[in-house]
Amino acid sequence: MVQISKVPVICRRAFYADLAAAGEAAGMGSASAATLAELAAAAAEPPQLDPDYADLDPALVVDLVAANHILAHNGVLDSFGHVSVRDPRDPHRYLQMQAIAPRDVSVRDLITFDLDSNAINARGRPVYRERFIHGEIYKVRADVNAVVHSHSPGVIPFGVTEQPLRAIFHNGHFLGQGAPVWEIRKTAGEKNGMLVNTGELGKSLAQTLGNGSVVLMRGHGDAVAGPDLKTTVFRAIYTEVNARLQMQAVMLGGPINFLNQYEQQKSQNVDRPWDTWRKQVGVG
Amino acid sequence: MVQISKVPVICRRAFYADLAAAGEAAGMGSASAATLAELAAAAAEPPQLDPDYADLDPALVVDLVAANHILAHNGVLDSFGHVSVRDPRDPHRYLQMQAIAPRDVSVRDLITFDLDSNAINARGRPVYRERFIHGEIYKVRADVNAVVHSHSPGVIPFGVTEQPLRAIFHNGHFLGQGAPVWEIRKTAGEKNGMLVNTGELGKSLAQTLGNGSVVLMRGHGDAVAGPDLKTTVFRAIYTEVNARLQMQAVMLGGPINFLNQYEQQKSQNVDRPWDTWRKQVGVG
Amino acid sequence: MVQISKVPVICRRAFYADLAAAGEAAGMGSASAATLAELAAAAAEPPQLDPDYADLDPALVVDLVAANHILAHNGVLDSFGHVSVRDPRDPHRYLQMQAIAPRDVSVRDLITFDLDSNAINARGRPVYRERFIHGEIYKVRADVNAVVHSHSPGVIPFGVTEQPLRAIFHNGHFLGQGAPVWEIRKTAGEKNGMLVNTGELGKSLAQTLGNGSVVLMRGHGDAVAGPDLKTTVFRAIYTEVNARLQMQAVMLGGPINFLNQYEQQKSQNVDRPWDTWRKQVGVG
Amino acid sequence: MVQISKVPVICRRAFYADLAAAGEAAGMGSASAATLAELAAAAAEPPQLDPDYADLDPALVVDLVAANHILAHNGVLDSFGHVSVRDPRDPHRYLQMQAIAPRDVSVRDLITFDLDSNAINARGRPVYRERFIHGEIYKVRADVNAVVHSHSPGVIPFGVTEQPLRAIFHNGHFLGQGAPVWEIRKTAGEKNGMLVNTGELGKSLAQTLGNGSVVLMRGHGDAVAGPDLKTTVFRAIYTEVNARLQMQAVMLGGPINFLNQYEQQKSQNVDRPWDTWRKQVGVG
Repeated sequence: MVQISKVPVICRRAFYADLAAAGEAAGMGSASAATLAELAAAAAEPPQLDPDYADLDPALVVDLVAANHILAHNGVLDSFGHVSVRDPRDPHRYLQMQAIAPRDVSVRDLITFDLDSNAINARGRPVYRERFIHGEIYKVRADVNAVVHSHSPGVIPFGVTEQPLRAIFHNGHFLGQGAPVWEIRKTAGEKNGMLVNTGELGKSLAQTLGNGSVVLMRGHGDAVAGPDLKTTVFRAIYTEVNARLQMQAVMLGGPINFLNQYEQQKSQNVDRPWDTWRKQVGVG
Repeated sequence: MVQISKVPVICRRAFYADLAAAGEAAGMGSASAATLAELAAAAAEPPQLDPDYADLDPALVVDLVAANHILAHNGVLDSFGHVSVRDPRDPHRYLQMQAIAPRDVSVRDLITFDLDSNAINARGRPVYRERFIHGEIYKVRADVNAVVHSHSPGVIPFGVTEQPLRAIFHNGHFLGQGAPVWEIRKTAGEKNGMLVNTGELGKSLAQTLGNGSVVLMRGHGDAVAGPDLKTTVFRAIYTEVNARLQMQAVMLGGPINFLNQYEQQKSQNVDRPWDTWRKQVGVG
Repeated sequence: MVQISKVPVICRRAFYADLAAAGEAAGMGSASAATLAELAAAAAEPPQLDPDYADLDPALVVDLVAANHILAHNGVLDSFGHVSVRDPRDPHRYLQMQAIAPRDVSVRDLITFDLDSNAINARGRPVYRERFIHGEIYKVRADVNAVVHSHSPGVIPFGVTEQPLRAIFHNGHFLGQGAPVWEIRKTAGEKNGMLVNTGELGKSLAQTLGNGSVVLMRGHGDAVAGPDLKTTVFRAIYTEVNARLQMQAVMLGGPINFLNQYEQQKSQNVDRPWDTWRKQVGVG
Repeated sequence: MVQISKVPVICRRAFYADLAAAGEAAGMGSASAATLAELAAAAAEPPQLDPDYADLDPALVVDLVAANHILAHNGVLDSFGHVSVRDPRDPHRYLQMQAIAPRDVSVRDLITFDLDSNAINARGRPVYRERFIHGEIYKVRADVNAVVHSHSPGVIPFGVTEQPLRAIFHNGHFLGQGAPVWEIRKTAGEKNGMLVNTGELGKSLAQTLGNGSVVLMRGHGDAVAGPDLKTTVFRAIYTEVNARLQMQAVMLGGPINFLNQYEQQKSQNVDRPWDTWRKQVGVG
């Protein structure tokens, strides 16, 4: 059963609607059905967004909430990490939640940032210290509309050793011939704070990302970029899966037969996993 | 507790029947019991199949739904992969769900295919692009009545290295002296799309499978075949288990004492695991 | 929440009693409390055992059910494997469930066997084919009152390689200087069926166990023995934990500093884990 | 959903309050809402602590309960291990639960100890045999106000091999250049009991810890110290995470690029993970 106490209000609505449908389908009697019908009616109302977002499609906000929950559910994000999406109303801005754990975010946590990562409407709410990862990538990558920063546990070991993370199976095709590793010491020196908490550091990271989809951050995690939220979540999850597979292949003794350059250009269906991941976290 | 929102209607019936039985067994009072009794009555009704399947045993359809859920629950299938069963009404046809994630399928998703993998009654529903894996195996293997295609995570590393996947314990006996690896480049060349999305590619894969139970697909996953649905699900799950065990044995430094040719011919009880797996996903 | 649909009736009673206590403790109102009170009253009744067991302490049967569920919950048993306890009414007999998956057993599944592993009161119910593991160990080990046979996944790799499974941390102390490996080929030859399905094979396995606590079965699993049910369940679980730790230590490159002979004689508190494991599976 | 039967009473209150809020937010009808309102009212009452703790902030006790549950939920503690906090009313005393499994503790289990680890108010309740780990660390480390002892499974292999456990990513920064390993044989000789069950052994362990945050115990586990409960729980969890990452990096073949001495001095936000961990176990 969906974990009610962890699901934000907007998602609870979907849950109650589903529960009511289940009751009806099973031929549930009138007394119980009435209670479920009440819930379903409430669930049919649109989510109440902040007035700042009156001109924004609520579905995008629900998707952003879902993206946070999906990445936490799949072990890519733990208490840390963050997701953003470029603001469809203004390409010089992006949307991100206030600084709380991804699995706990709801629609009420939405904040708008300019591409220098200044918050437009934080109103006292805390913001992620490493939001510059997002803003600086959006600045130089017009093709990118969503970014994930994580401490993806299978990926971190590839950032501190000399084994490049490469596409080992078709669902990791976007990794190509090897994701680059960003070394903070090259920009901030030996006496650095390990965090991408300035525009300068974010800019350096975005340069290392280049035209790619994924950049590893030595001793820290990675950043994943994509053309839309669904694709970016897909890439973040399958970067982790690919890393685990590659580690096992190394353990088997190699040599490893990676995807070739043509196989890496495979087109990808992201709707099917997105739909089922949304259901898993109680949305949709 | 069974996850109501994820279970298809037919399975919810089983769930409610079980819940009602539990209430009765615990001596639950009349008010609550009445609600459960309503649910149990609904649960006693047979599932409503599509008229196309009026002459098909509903139990087979429930088994096919269960097979999808079981393989997802056991980590063999994620958002991708598919299961099929040969149509008992016509050996030149097979049954498979429409193209949605395995954990979300229900009896309403059933579609019939001929052995060239043309859909007979899709009526606009999407079909799996790699359904040719199934059709082409059924064509050349009269002894096969069920097929699973998966991205089984412990198995993929064996398809990209030189360590053959072999029977390392009795429940992996069907792997024999080593599952063959199918290389798509041999049929489709270096510029291939990594997917078995034509009859020609399916035919090539079926040839590599030969008389075996399992064929690995390089950089992709595997296909598993068997005489019936239960046995094939058993093989798909224990192929994954065997792979994990073999990887650990490699890590321990070997040499590995595999099953010999006689031990690989062991007969297998698949009813016991099937029964408990069905209960785990809320069916039976 | 305890998974109601998977818990046998006797365990559901404990669950309802706990739920009622929770409601009372939280100051729940009278209407809801009345329903819970009904459940609690039902829960207070003793379990209804088969008349064959009228002179047996029901607590032992509940413990045996719990042992099955605990070992399944902790990943030591999957759909296969079994647990037995020597009959306290007659040391020449032992008690074991009918042949169903361990996670599904309930008090109604109890069967009595003599030490040649003939069922005394099966009444048509299926029995485990490898019950001889149990009977033959009880014959030669008067100090043993409970036995577990499993396909413990971390342990199997040690049975097919040359790395002895040894006590690597204090909770694995009972493994001593290395658990012996039983090779079925030595008794049944190259053309064997991999199963301990005769008294002769069980006798051979018991000889390899000797005075120890654990014997590995090559390409199959292990058997664990102990003075009582709690201790034997503890050993079965910590054999698996020890195996995983030792595998990781091998991966770190060794050399491994194992427990010495004195440290292996540590006394063990098994009540604390037993109590919490019972709660985890909904008993006690 | 929070697992009601496993949550101590004080935590159930938080659960019910949350559930009532969820119902209200979803526009739930009056009949159902009334039941939830009753629960919420009960939840609003402060927890009933033992009179010994009338002058203690109840929030600290709830935090200590939560710490136990969080560490069990994250796999750092199993049935064994324990957490303590220095008594804010008297720095020569510390608080710890009676000797039951961490996942089962509640506010009623609190006991006070002096720094020689004598129980002040046990009143017949069992105490942890290895409580000396806590008392002896508090004696020599005025900066330490919370201690965790665990059998953290990823960490144990580092205590029995020659690979030092070092800071491999920013969240493991407190591990510095390598956690020391304490060898009980140096203090207790070859014929030792593997447990820190005397003040002398605790003193020896505290000496090996020195000014650090973590000390490994060969063939046993580790002890983690910190300035407050939140930070210490953070360190215990990320010691385990760091160990798993380092093991994977070793498997990739190294050489490993560890944090340098400046990066190891990173400041740490522990509020965000603490908040979400509390929610995960049903508190807060």
